[in-house]
Amino acid sequence: MNRILRVNMTDQVVTEEPVAAVYAGLAGRGLTSKIVGEEVPPLCHPLGLENKLVIAPGLLSGTAAACSGRLSIGAKSPLTGGIKESNAGGTASQKIARLGIAAIIIEGRPPKGTLWKLVIDKKKAELAPAKGLKNKNNYKLVEKLTEEHGEKVSYITIGSAGERLMSAASIAVTDLENRPTRHAGRGGLGAVMGSKGLKALVIDDKGAPAVPIKDKEAFTKAIRKFAKALKEHPVTGEGLPTYGTNVLTNLVNEAGGLPTNNFSSGQFVDVSKVSGEAQREIILKRGGIATHACHRGCVIRCSRVYMDKNKKYLTKGPEYETIWANGPNCGISDLDVIARLDRLYDDIGVDSIEMGVTLGVLMESGYIEFGDSAGAIKLIREEVAKATPLGRILGAGTAVTGQAFGVERVPVVKRQAMPAYDPRAVKGIGVTYATTPMGADHTAGYSVTANVLGVGGNVDPLKPEGQVELSRNLQVATAAIDTAGLCLFVAFAVLDIPAAFEAIYEMINAQYGLSLGPDDIAGLGKAVLKEEIAFNKKAGFTAADDRLPRFFETEKLPPHNVVFDVPHSELDSVLNF
Amino acid sequence: MNRILRVNMTDQVVTEEPVAAVYAGLAGRGLTSKIVGEEVPPLCHPLGLENKLVIAPGLLSGTAAACSGRLSIGAKSPLTGGIKESNAGGTASQKIARLGIAAIIIEGRPPKGTLWKLVIDKKKAELAPAKGLKNKNNYKLVEKLTEEHGEKVSYITIGSAGERLMSAASIAVTDLENRPTRHAGRGGLGAVMGSKGLKALVIDDKGAPAVPIKDKEAFTKAIRKFAKALKEHPVTGEGLPTYGTNVLTNLVNEAGGLPTNNFSSGQFVDVSKVSGEAQREIILKRGGIATHACHRGCVIRCSRVYMDKNKKYLTKGPEYETIWANGPNCGISDLDVIARLDRLYDDIGVDSIEMGVTLGVLMESGYIEFGDSAGAIKLIREEVAKATPLGRILGAGTAVTGQAFGVERVPVVKRQAMPAYDPRAVKGIGVTYATTPMGADHTAGYSVTANVLGVGGNVDPLKPEGQVELSRNLQVATAAIDTAGLCLFVAFAVLDIPAAFEAIYEMINAQYGLSLGPDDIAGLGKAVLKEEIAFNKKAGFTAADDRLPRFFETEKLPPHNVVFDVPHSELDSVLNF
Repeated sequence: MNRILRVNMTDQVVTEEPVAAVYAGLAGRGLTSKIVGEEVPPLCHPLGLENKLVIAPGLLSGTAAACSGRLSIGAKSPLTGGIKESNAGGTASQKIARLGIAAIIIEGRPPKGTLWKLVIDKKKAELAPAKGLKNKNNYKLVEKLTEEHGEKVSYITIGSAGERLMSAASIAVTDLENRPTRHAGRGGLGAVMGSKGLKALVIDDKGAPAVPIKDKEAFTKAIRKFAKALKEHPVTGEGLPTYGTNVLTNLVNEAGGLPTNNFSSGQFVDVSKVSGEAQREIILKRGGIATHACHRGCVIRCSRVYMDKNKKYLTKGPEYETIWANGPNCGISDLDVIARLDRLYDDIGVDSIEMGVTLGVLMESGYIEFGDSAGAIKLIREEVAKATPLGRILGAGTAVTGQAFGVERVPVVKRQAMPAYDPRAVKGIGVTYATTPMGADHTAGYSVTANVLGVGGNVDPLKPEGQVELSRNLQVATAAIDTAGLCLFVAFAVLDIPAAFEAIYEMINAQYGLSLGPDDIAGLGKAVLKEEIAFNKKAGFTAADDRLPRFFETEKLPPHNVVFDVPHSELDSVLNF
Repeated sequence: MNRILRVNMTDQVVTEEPVAAVYAGLAGRGLTSKIVGEEVPPLCHPLGLENKLVIAPGLLSGTAAACSGRLSIGAKSPLTGGIKESNAGGTASQKIARLGIAAIIIEGRPPKGTLWKLVIDKKKAELAPAKGLKNKNNYKLVEKLTEEHGEKVSYITIGSAGERLMSAASIAVTDLENRPTRHAGRGGLGAVMGSKGLKALVIDDKGAPAVPIKDKEAFTKAIRKFAKALKEHPVTGEGLPTYGTNVLTNLVNEAGGLPTNNFSSGQFVDVSKVSGEAQREIILKRGGIATHACHRGCVIRCSRVYMDKNKKYLTKGPEYETIWANGPNCGISDLDVIARLDRLYDDIGVDSIEMGVTLGVLMESGYIEFGDSAGAIKLIREEVAKATPLGRILGAGTAVTGQAFGVERVPVVKRQAMPAYDPRAVKGIGVTYATTPMGADHTAGYSVTANVLGVGGNVDPLKPEGQVELSRNLQVATAAIDTAGLCLFVAFAVLDIPAAFEAIYEMINAQYGLSLGPDDIAGLGKAVLKEEIAFNKKAGFTAADDRLPRFFETEKLPPHNVVFDVPHSELDSVLNF
């Protein structure tokens, strides 16, 4: 990965440049955040000329390392107003890495109303008009693109939501079946891509050489060690492959931390209808796929393929977070309804967490009732997909919806919707929500591990003690994992099996001829976080932005009747390195 | 003014308390900001249990001092998220002062769905159910209230927008004709009142004694000196009485600083159709009133009464800011259209500046065209008044509308819409917009004086030099004037005629038996600003919030082709005392 593609949308010129010294040695989130930090004015408008969309595969992407296919996408976020990295699975990261591309920087802005696609292969990278693709949603869009570019490439696309500059818009990446099911969902990056007039990237790695490995023997040894550990760990070797991410529904509900009816309770009465167990049964009964990889080389295989009642493909997964946001959080207990919403979200190109939490806030306003499945689907299909005024409110996300409807209980941090763990009953994740530079984001420091799953130790989820250290360590490790291009789920094994952690730096060392040790991995994670925090500070963020909404501190969550009580002073110490 | 009324909406109990030592000597904005600073948690939700709405007459309110009838209303703002004081004319301030009430603090929250009115007279202050008033707009509401409480009281009310918690909702105060035309417009205070379930305050000062004056002789002398100066100054003695605030349209257009078509140009081609001169002609032709006071004791009399084509009352004014926001800023040049919008805004209870700027941003998105008068009226009458989804977007203000429609050019500071002077061509007001704790607000430090009007000196509006000092001095003086309960327009005389300034502290000294000098007035203004800045800091505001939107720094404004170029470091020095 020795070159950067710079895509100037203003005059539609793509140039290639070597990786500048300041960016050397970085990849994935580390590189997207560094480029955004160096090149984007923190006070610029996220949809303006000066913002840049940066796409970067991870350090290990494109190699045979297990689960190394995450693609990082970064920019100043239209949702949070801060720096954003959101990463997705799918097949694009590996192809970009094999093309030797460290990053694609999309900058400038084309003439109004024009729409483009960027076609990258071994020999060239060029922009072409995205003819006939205007306001196409992702499934139809990929179908159209496939007619011209075939099935063996990867597509990175936005649906109508991204073109329409909705703050909840995602960027889709195609999976192994050439479906737009893998999304860089959070923070409205799809709107940034839309503001650049870029509808799709076509990534064709035909004829590209293998990613160079300095020490092949050591690399082979390390990747075997890594894969072995992933297979050995009960979560990555058994729980996730069997039930997918939705293995969590029963566990989190049991812990009293499953936010229900817009964070009003920590348990959902109909939990058994939406659990991983129930989902697996439906999938198997209808001839779906219960264990499935989103990119080559994944040994966890947590993805699934969900069929409708007529045994026809409906959507992937859906994942736990999607099921929670649009299920228990909305008082909805019908997996088919949730799957239809998931399909709509992937198609329109919006974040399924942001949208589910937004629906919950709208339900709290009384506009529709909790549990109104038909109403929820209609809102997405008839309003968001058609960009009606109501669709524009919802598509702008939870914070805007809360303000427009005068709702007080709006579960966001830094204006981003909170994911599937109530911070009052899972306090470690509350610390992460509050303090990560990304806005409320479970993936930034997944304290659910030691709080609920007994992975990497045990920290009582109901008490404030120990949560800060737990979240800090996980945030640092995650920033490094996101830089490596590894799927976050490797963390389960890494936290419990020393060999898995060792294998990470051994793989990097063997690939790049380095001699990193455990401290260097932590140092890398800290450096990434520092870069992100510095950007946010310049964009105007303060300690006051590192707080949960007030109602989490004042309103008790059943069944444990707890509030979020990690002291503010402790929150301020989380990332003060 | 020796007592504070504390209105607990949770159990509908009104208690009376002496003015605590920490609040002693303060009134108006000084008192509302102090109480909000002391009693409201900066991180609370503006529509939540913990916010408080504080209403306070000024130091000189209720006396015979000219133009002393401003009523300050404060809270944490649902629009900006920071501290807010917005003041209105009308008759209530004088009555509250005569009842000896220093402040009314409205706190807590009643049972959901209940709506109340607060009736205050010489003997009592009590809450009663606001029967039959739900979602009534201000004109009908005041009519209904008048049936019960008569015409000789003052009404402080919210329309449907306040009840519906719209962030642009205002609080109306009745004028001398018992019409709800005087609004604490900015910052969404109407939504705070709505969140408290309070539909109206009825202020009856029948039988209340005169405001006590310590040294009557000195007071009489000082108020005569003050009134004389106001009558002598060309702006307060001639310009404002003749043309009202709309005397400004031609002047600001001439200066190239009249924002047109959502801040795209500084001059409006059809300016002659909306000028003060044109407005006066229409008013006189239709038997309206061209010179009119909004409360007793006003010698400036800048208000007007505007009749429709059938010579029937339509609305007050409209004021310059309203005419600009809904006229040139929207490409609209029909004063009757603007007057109808003004009437709708007063009736629904929304800020006419915020709404006009919001319409401009919506026009920029292409939803309707610039100049579409019928479209603009329909949006307010059919959408905002009916709280449709589109009405909820618009009612949430400019920042939300910009985000929902993906518009980049959104003229707000601290999420509050920018008033009627382009900061690129009137740089002194740009400094005020950027740095006042109130969000973009011309009244917080009206640098247009020396920039355009040649009042209080001359500072070239197109150059960055001298603007910081100009804005600082005006912000300090304004905070003191707002504390005194004086109409801001007295500043024109105060800036040019030493006797007018002297008279202010002489009036206060005579009333309260004090011996304040000029430095004490400045000290008072600084203390108020410090309190407000401290609140905002705790609420998460930083230097990054003291900036204009980026496009003002990058996009040249015709006809002078200037950008806003006061250095950021200088902006940071404005209020650093």
